Amino acid sequence: MNYRKRFRAAPGSRAALDRFDPGDTAGLGDKRKAERLLAHGIERLAREQDRLYAQKTWAVLVILQALDAAGKDSTIEHVMSGVNPQGCQVFSFKAPSEEELGHDYLWRSVRALPERGRIGIHNRSYYEEVIVTRVHPELLSRERVPNLKSGRALWRQRFREINQFERYLVDNGIAVVKFFLHISKEEQRRRFLDRLDEPEKFWKFKPADLIERARWDDYQTAYTQVFRHTSTPWAPWFVVPANHKWFTRLVVADILCDTLAGLDLEPRALTKQERRERDKARAALRV
Amino acid sequence: MNYRKRFRAAPGSRAALDRFDPGDTAGLGDKRKAERLLAHGIERLAREQDRLYAQKTWAVLVILQALDAAGKDSTIEHVMSGVNPQGCQVFSFKAPSEEELGHDYLWRSVRALPERGRIGIHNRSYYEEVIVTRVHPELLSRERVPNLKSGRALWRQRFREINQFERYLVDNGIAVVKFFLHISKEEQRRRFLDRLDEPEKFWKFKPADLIERARWDDYQTAYTQVFRHTSTPWAPWFVVPANHKWFTRLVVADILCDTLAGLDLEPRALTKQERRERDKARAALRV
Repeated sequence: MNYRKRFRAAPGSRAALDRFDPGDTAGLGDKRKAERLLAHGIERLAREQDRLYAQKTWAVLVILQALDAAGKDSTIEHVMSGVNPQGCQVFSFKAPSEEELGHDYLWRSVRALPERGRIGIHNRSYYEEVIVTRVHPELLSRERVPNLKSGRALWRQRFREINQFERYLVDNGIAVVKFFLHISKEEQRRRFLDRLDEPEKFWKFKPADLIERARWDDYQTAYTQVFRHTSTPWAPWFVVPANHKWFTRLVVADILCDTLAGLDLEPRALTKQERRERDKARAALRV
Repeated sequence: MNYRKRFRAAPGSRAALDRFDPGDTAGLGDKRKAERLLAHGIERLAREQDRLYAQKTWAVLVILQALDAAGKDSTIEHVMSGVNPQGCQVFSFKAPSEEELGHDYLWRSVRALPERGRIGIHNRSYYEEVIVTRVHPELLSRERVPNLKSGRALWRQRFREINQFERYLVDNGIAVVKFFLHISKEEQRRRFLDRLDEPEKFWKFKPADLIERARWDDYQTAYTQVFRHTSTPWAPWFVVPANHKWFTRLVVADILCDTLAGLDLEPRALTKQERRERDKARAALRV
């Protein structure tokens, strides 16, 4: 199954988010089988990541976005568990700090960009600046941007800026892959209830979660716009069904593997100078 | 005298650098008078910077580029001496470190961007990536960018990336002003000789300076290309005559003042809520 193709948000598509089925498992009914496939995918990912780390030419930026309780944290935990932590950095972005608000909205993400050879996972990202601020435009005043555009013109500007930024990243050796974990409103309700009912999950619950849940439709609309305008050939969005966690993990691992496999990670040919140095070192060691 | 107009590099102009006169003093022959004007300009700059700091909406990025011995450091020292250091940050960029080479070429500059309310001075900048690397393309291999374009296509790509980056900055409240301190080859010779002859200046001399001096014409060509492609309406280049340091300082201070004065730094009208809070506080203090 080519998940990369199946779950990719088509550039410019006007398809609303509800065209994607959060309960989709691509015909894979068997959770046990999915777990075997995931284990296999994680091994493959670890191998690809070793090559990435050895070449130190490409870096990979993985962006994870979702509504609450869609499983971002547990996806990171399960998919990246087999990867050498030296080659992988996770950053979780919360509401911006005073220092971060003093800068442009890409600033904190740029600081956290992965080095060549590494996978950088951004748990939330600058996309919040076209999602949460679109649902709650009153947040914009905290950013203190002079002469800020308003309404549609502002979002168009930010989509353009984000596309140009990601284009720059890819052209400079930072591959970008973006996942939206897509749950249904009913599944979110079930997971919130779990958090309230199970003492060991209660720490995850915040009263504000229900306030955001009440804006469900606004978030769906904001995300639809994001996919339409920023799922580009160089930095595609993948809308990953997230009602079944075992399937989410499988899909994310698989697409990530394919992304790394698509980079040119073959050891490059040695230069004349390097070949000479290699031969010299070999001779010295064989004395 | 409108220095902003006189020394601005026209966007798209094919005029070679030697069309600008490094010895120009705009008819101002009297150094004493220039120093009085500079003192006045520095006062004005300090006032403008106070407004910038109070409003905390705009930031200002000042880029300084030049060949060796053109007086970047002393310009910073003399022009910014009157400005509140809390509102001004200077970053000097040297050859990139291993960590910096592990990232895209804008990364280290973004990290050093000024916060709202501040002036950030970048002594050298990402422009080195289209100047020193253009004169010494062998440096590019250290950057380890996969599938890097070569020749003209690479420089065009970088010019486009830089223009888009600066456009993003300006649209998000970071004004960009770029100075090239322009000396003549003969004046550089004199200043190098001074460094060799005067013991207290000798620390400034590096043997590599002469190697770069031998590439004088290549640097002039590289800078000509930079002005042609990246002096934009939103982030203009100023080619400042630098054979006479007193004149350089005067021009830089003046253009910087005008840049700040051109920003909208009036205290904004209070919101209804803020007016209510003000009135409450006033009443409480007048009991």
